[in-house]
Amino acid sequence: MQKKPMQNVKALFFDVFGTMVDWRSGVAREAERLLAPLGHHLDWLAFADAWRAEYQPGMEEVRSGRLPFARLDVIHRRMLERIRPSFGLQGVEESVLQMLNLAWHRLDAWPDVPPGLHRLRTRFLLAPVSNGNISLMVDLARRNDFRWDAILGAEIAGDYKPKPGVYLAAAEAFSLRPEQCMMVAAHSNDLQAAAGTGLHTAHVARANEFGQDAGETAPTVPVDIAAASFQDLADKLEV
Amino acid sequence: MQKKPMQNVKALFFDVFGTMVDWRSGVAREAERLLAPLGHHLDWLAFADAWRAEYQPGMEEVRSGRLPFARLDVIHRRMLERIRPSFGLQGVEESVLQMLNLAWHRLDAWPDVPPGLHRLRTRFLLAPVSNGNISLMVDLARRNDFRWDAILGAEIAGDYKPKPGVYLAAAEAFSLRPEQCMMVAAHSNDLQAAAGTGLHTAHVARANEFGQDAGETAPTVPVDIAAASFQDLADKLEV
Repeated sequence: MQKKPMQNVKALFFDVFGTMVDWRSGVAREAERLLAPLGHHLDWLAFADAWRAEYQPGMEEVRSGRLPFARLDVIHRRMLERIRPSFGLQGVEESVLQMLNLAWHRLDAWPDVPPGLHRLRTRFLLAPVSNGNISLMVDLARRNDFRWDAILGAEIAGDYKPKPGVYLAAAEAFSLRPEQCMMVAAHSNDLQAAAGTGLHTAHVARANEFGQDAGETAPTVPVDIAAASFQDLADKLEV
Repeated sequence: MQKKPMQNVKALFFDVFGTMVDWRSGVAREAERLLAPLGHHLDWLAFADAWRAEYQPGMEEVRSGRLPFARLDVIHRRMLERIRPSFGLQGVEESVLQMLNLAWHRLDAWPDVPPGLHRLRTRFLLAPVSNGNISLMVDLARRNDFRWDAILGAEIAGDYKPKPGVYLAAAEAFSLRPEQCMMVAAHSNDLQAAAGTGLHTAHVARANEFGQDAGETAPTVPVDIAAASFQDLADKLEV
């Protein structure tokens, strides 16, 4: 089955939004915390879903070359501007919008992530290879006690996943060949792109990422490992 | 005295070689470990000094634009090639040279560094802003238990200190203004350049960096803090 021996894997790269942190409930919570006291009464989960729905179009402007690279904080703000009118948020003050935009810095990990990551660290170098910018990754790491060896990903590469250069820049930063690295994600398109650059891949099921039973319970592409959780991933990597 | 209030400082940036790790004894030890069994009997400390003496000329080729950016591992190898003949090392095999070149990944921290860094982490974001490449910083961090929020510095900036862009790229990666950051180093030229970009600065005395009593015992330029050790720096920052 496996063309590349897994015992050569030295580093694990992690997708973050959805795979490690629950963006949906976190963004809904932060939006309610900031906007409810100002008299706004939205369907907070629908607001989080609408904001996230602008994610791929927002990044595609950069991936396609139509707009120059900008960090995800900037893209998140553009996405927010697109959905504001639909939620009656035209009148919200700039200072509140800036705090709201940082909702993505204040998300909580799925419960299996911190203990799983702790085990994985004993044998592998660990880095996020996320589309999130460095300061966003730093804030999530401090909040959730993720212990990274380095922050890699889009801001290092100057482009967004699933462009191949993002995965290759991460391997290069660790002075490793692609086959010495493994991408871990809850999204098959991310893993398919990573595998295309020569990385090993591990899928982690997040059945409720987009709401109850709305998430990938299994990969739709070939992967080296399909895991039910970060603890299961550590088991399967025999850590 | 101070133009910029220090209570705004959110992040500390660290020089690494000399300031945090003792490169001289470490490179001497690694060279002896690899070369003595092959029958070489050098003055190992003189060898370390000679290798390090090529450091500024090696980086200047990049800073001046004469050569494109290459990570420090590559520069270290060029430097090694320049000094090999003087030490009778022309006949050493390529595989040994590659291991020798990684001596810089296997250096030990000055004893005050791990406990001082641990204290500083409770109040500040911490990152190396070194000329060392990411994988080099990762190896030193694993060996010495440095807990970084991110690995910043030359490889992120695509240029070498003391070029201003290296300090500014580090502040930008943390989404901070220069005056919210403080550069910590044992070298006045590094601190002078950092201050020129608007960063706060702290000097740490390393009296024996280049051998007994051969190191900066005090800064030769104005700094915000002059400390005797990382523990003293934590005291002076009231952590």
